[in-house]
Amino acid sequence: MYRSHTNGELRAAHIGQEVTLAGWVQKSRDLGGMTFVDLRDRYGITQLAFNLEENSDLCLQARKLGREFVIQVKGLVIERSSKNANLPTGEIEIKVSELNLLNAAKTPPFTIEDDTDGGEELRAQYRYLDLRRNPVQQKLRLRNQVALETRKYLDSNGFLDVETPYLIKSTPEGARDFVVPSRMNPGEFYALPQSPQTFKQLLMVSGFDRYYQIVKCFRDEDLRADRQPEFTQIDCEMAFVEQEDILNMFEGLIKHLFQTVRGITFEGNFPRMTYAEAMAIYGSDKPDIRFDMKFTDLKALSSGKNFQVFDNAEAVIGIAVPGASEYTRKQLDEITDWIKRPQIGALGLVYVKCNLDGTFKSSVDKFYDEAALKSWAEASGAKAGDLIFVLSGDLDKTRKQMNELRLRMGTELGLRKPDEFKPLWVLDFPLLEWDEEHGRYHAMHHPFTSPKPEDFGLIDSEPGKVRANAYDLAMNGVELGGGSIRIHDRALQSRMFELLGFTPEQAQEQFGFLLNAFEYGAPPHGGLAFGLDRLVATMGGSDSIRDYIAFPKNNSGRDVMIDAPSQIDEVQLKELGIKTN
Amino acid sequence: MYRSHTNGELRAAHIGQEVTLAGWVQKSRDLGGMTFVDLRDRYGITQLAFNLEENSDLCLQARKLGREFVIQVKGLVIERSSKNANLPTGEIEIKVSELNLLNAAKTPPFTIEDDTDGGEELRAQYRYLDLRRNPVQQKLRLRNQVALETRKYLDSNGFLDVETPYLIKSTPEGARDFVVPSRMNPGEFYALPQSPQTFKQLLMVSGFDRYYQIVKCFRDEDLRADRQPEFTQIDCEMAFVEQEDILNMFEGLIKHLFQTVRGITFEGNFPRMTYAEAMAIYGSDKPDIRFDMKFTDLKALSSGKNFQVFDNAEAVIGIAVPGASEYTRKQLDEITDWIKRPQIGALGLVYVKCNLDGTFKSSVDKFYDEAALKSWAEASGAKAGDLIFVLSGDLDKTRKQMNELRLRMGTELGLRKPDEFKPLWVLDFPLLEWDEEHGRYHAMHHPFTSPKPEDFGLIDSEPGKVRANAYDLAMNGVELGGGSIRIHDRALQSRMFELLGFTPEQAQEQFGFLLNAFEYGAPPHGGLAFGLDRLVATMGGSDSIRDYIAFPKNNSGRDVMIDAPSQIDEVQLKELGIKTN
Repeated sequence: MYRSHTNGELRAAHIGQEVTLAGWVQKSRDLGGMTFVDLRDRYGITQLAFNLEENSDLCLQARKLGREFVIQVKGLVIERSSKNANLPTGEIEIKVSELNLLNAAKTPPFTIEDDTDGGEELRAQYRYLDLRRNPVQQKLRLRNQVALETRKYLDSNGFLDVETPYLIKSTPEGARDFVVPSRMNPGEFYALPQSPQTFKQLLMVSGFDRYYQIVKCFRDEDLRADRQPEFTQIDCEMAFVEQEDILNMFEGLIKHLFQTVRGITFEGNFPRMTYAEAMAIYGSDKPDIRFDMKFTDLKALSSGKNFQVFDNAEAVIGIAVPGASEYTRKQLDEITDWIKRPQIGALGLVYVKCNLDGTFKSSVDKFYDEAALKSWAEASGAKAGDLIFVLSGDLDKTRKQMNELRLRMGTELGLRKPDEFKPLWVLDFPLLEWDEEHGRYHAMHHPFTSPKPEDFGLIDSEPGKVRANAYDLAMNGVELGGGSIRIHDRALQSRMFELLGFTPEQAQEQFGFLLNAFEYGAPPHGGLAFGLDRLVATMGGSDSIRDYIAFPKNNSGRDVMIDAPSQIDEVQLKELGIKTN
Repeated sequence: MYRSHTNGELRAAHIGQEVTLAGWVQKSRDLGGMTFVDLRDRYGITQLAFNLEENSDLCLQARKLGREFVIQVKGLVIERSSKNANLPTGEIEIKVSELNLLNAAKTPPFTIEDDTDGGEELRAQYRYLDLRRNPVQQKLRLRNQVALETRKYLDSNGFLDVETPYLIKSTPEGARDFVVPSRMNPGEFYALPQSPQTFKQLLMVSGFDRYYQIVKCFRDEDLRADRQPEFTQIDCEMAFVEQEDILNMFEGLIKHLFQTVRGITFEGNFPRMTYAEAMAIYGSDKPDIRFDMKFTDLKALSSGKNFQVFDNAEAVIGIAVPGASEYTRKQLDEITDWIKRPQIGALGLVYVKCNLDGTFKSSVDKFYDEAALKSWAEASGAKAGDLIFVLSGDLDKTRKQMNELRLRMGTELGLRKPDEFKPLWVLDFPLLEWDEEHGRYHAMHHPFTSPKPEDFGLIDSEPGKVRANAYDLAMNGVELGGGSIRIHDRALQSRMFELLGFTPEQAQEQFGFLLNAFEYGAPPHGGLAFGLDRLVATMGGSDSIRDYIAFPKNNSGRDVMIDAPSQIDEVQLKELGIKTN
């Protein structure tokens, strides 16, 4: 036994006990004839006291301890002369009688403190040291709690945890697969799953009724800040359900998680909105509804005043930014430059200041008089002191640009509070989206999503207008998860593959097992998957999923700590029957 | 809502209620003017009743339902005229008023019954139908329960579930890696983890103190019946512990699992044995101690009687097989042939019948008289009516062969009872094993295992004799799991790599991150991993792990249901920068 107690455990009630502790030296200080060492572990910090006069050898030994040395001490729990109310163990200290050095430590390349002096790259390289820091440990503990409470909720609702395979078959649909060459089957490859989609559907065909899994998924995509090549899904599926059953079940899960993990209660049902509404009002299928600034259609009000830009635009959209009428010219220029960057791509930005004295001042005063501007203010709900931004152009693009601007302004004005949580169900996603580049339809969710029965009639005539029984749960501008009611009929599934450009032979070759399964008694079913990384980050009030992953990869898909990926030797390649170019 | 109740739910108390049920047609039968349909789901079976006279349309419709059709019915819960005490719902039936066909079904290629008529290959191809069978569902439910109870136990003992990466670095040590070509880093590869070993050690360096994960691991080995290319581990690690702490913690886990999942209580501590003892007494490091037949060293007793085979043998080992003295010549010949097969490789088998009349009859009567044979019987504990088997030759080989024979006889005599569970800790494994083929040492557990401190002195002089702080938990002849106290000192870890034939440069290149981590304050630590597949199979009283995996692969590493692995297209290969030979 290396220790009798942890470093977060001892209280006044333990005074007088002989204890053994172990941990890391957080820091030490010499005060007159005393040396005090803060001993740290996952559970807390305990103060060790060494008296130079009473035991000089031991005290001199303690004075040689560096930061992050690993030690074991034996000693007596005594009352602390100057108590530390900030520390749960602040009422006591250990009068040390024995000190064992378990392992020395070099000076860490950055300080192991809540606010460290280490840059991102250095901390990534020494991730095992960064993980010692309290804020990082807290994030991973939050993740552990969320996963465990997810399991408890789903188990109590009759879901079975069933493991699906990681070495599966590559399919052309969706994102790019990571593949794994097979040594036993030369020239052939497994693929790592982008999700266990077809397997969970087969489990429904098998009668498992309610399935879940917290499971790693893989996508070989070019990475952005909030993407990782491997990520974790809370993956669920239910049989004999309609959309409403699924929304209720998983709204219950999110409420349970916030309640148990964060102590936050959501009153009433989560609000709902169709995809069409969300796009019209927020220009996003995952709107942040912690703040207002809803889109206003200014097309009619702005037309016919000889402002060609608006007259020729498909869409003219405004938002009222509260209390921003006194933004300076410099601020407005900066915002204009920002929105004109290629990443966002607006051609220009029109603003209207709704001055506190009731007058208006805009960047288009040449075309619009006070009365016109006043009508815009009324339509967009702008009050004196607010600022109206107007963007125009192609409908889809303008919505996207205005969404970016709205989010930026929300952030800038402090309206996106990290401790406020606003869920929103977004419903009735389109079944298909048109891919200009390849001249064909893509499945918006995935090829297994069921069209809404009332739109069946449009499948042949106007497939682009067919809505799906597909839903997302958005929160604070983030997509926490989504799902759909699935097709469970072979003929409809075959028609869907046809719409997506598969020949019958290709459909059979890739998904024959699923099509066949549907002929042996497939129940109606549907499901949903949450992105665990993103859910936990959102619950933690953060944008960055990387902080909530123990060993994340960088934007080039590299683990810089272990230096992976790396070259492998010729023998391995030969055994696998492959060559690198 | 597709259903108001499941098919396992209705009881006499529900009589008089209108209900909606959904499920699969298990079977139907016509009895006079009635048609009865057994409706099945995961939860049970409910009998549906249709009356030809009262509602002929509906009843005729019901008579058209085939096996495995998916239907929904509405109706009244009524008392059953002939109750079925074998069925939890056997007191009631549903007087159906509405019948909806949700999906038709082709006749399944094998019967969906507890005893199916489907062969192994056919069932593998239609795994989604095999998974409908009750015994198969039970196995996966057992697995779900074991995983969940494992989490509960570990959580209540302060373990944190931390996910480690799946895309890691290939290392030459251990089994063959599966590798994943990186598109973003052309010519480089990730490897899939054989275990999260180094990551869990880094988490200990990070101060996580207690870690666990139920995690998929991958080994590209030639497959045997009880091996899968992907398998699941209950992976655990603890800091500031000695071997005794770990044994206690995980003995507690196994007791908790048997108690909660199977209702079986183990009294007292699990027995323990050193590796050396296990090999001497059972010829195995995972002995089945449900039955006796311990090895007896007959070398001294059998020497000097002119039987050259024994005289020249390094080892002469006997076992007493209870009650087998009347085995026929044919039976003994069959056993002799069996043990001489190349897979086992004995050169011959000597037997001694301890007849019920007190006489002895052996296959070596020419060399050994009654007195000699009697001395063998006494030494091996054979009584009248028993049979003694004797094998001889090289010590290691003879032990292995005798282990096979012992297990076969145990099975044959019904001594390996599927509902009896006998755990055994095997301790003090050797640190290294000599690899004749490559003329070097291999780590018996893995390169991170700590030698026993009392054997430190042998590392330079006789490395083959160094024992490790390594332990396995065996049960019923199966290795459930194993682990070790790890090295946490950089110098010792470097020395270990040297013993294993790494140059310092190779060690640094492959495991530099771990060696470096040890310099920044690594605590003493150790851990253990259980094979979940094998644990669950053992708890289920079965030898075959494949039955406990939802979608297993066959002996060629193929998933015959989805047909993976498979060829991928040229575009994919090109993007990855690889070519197949």
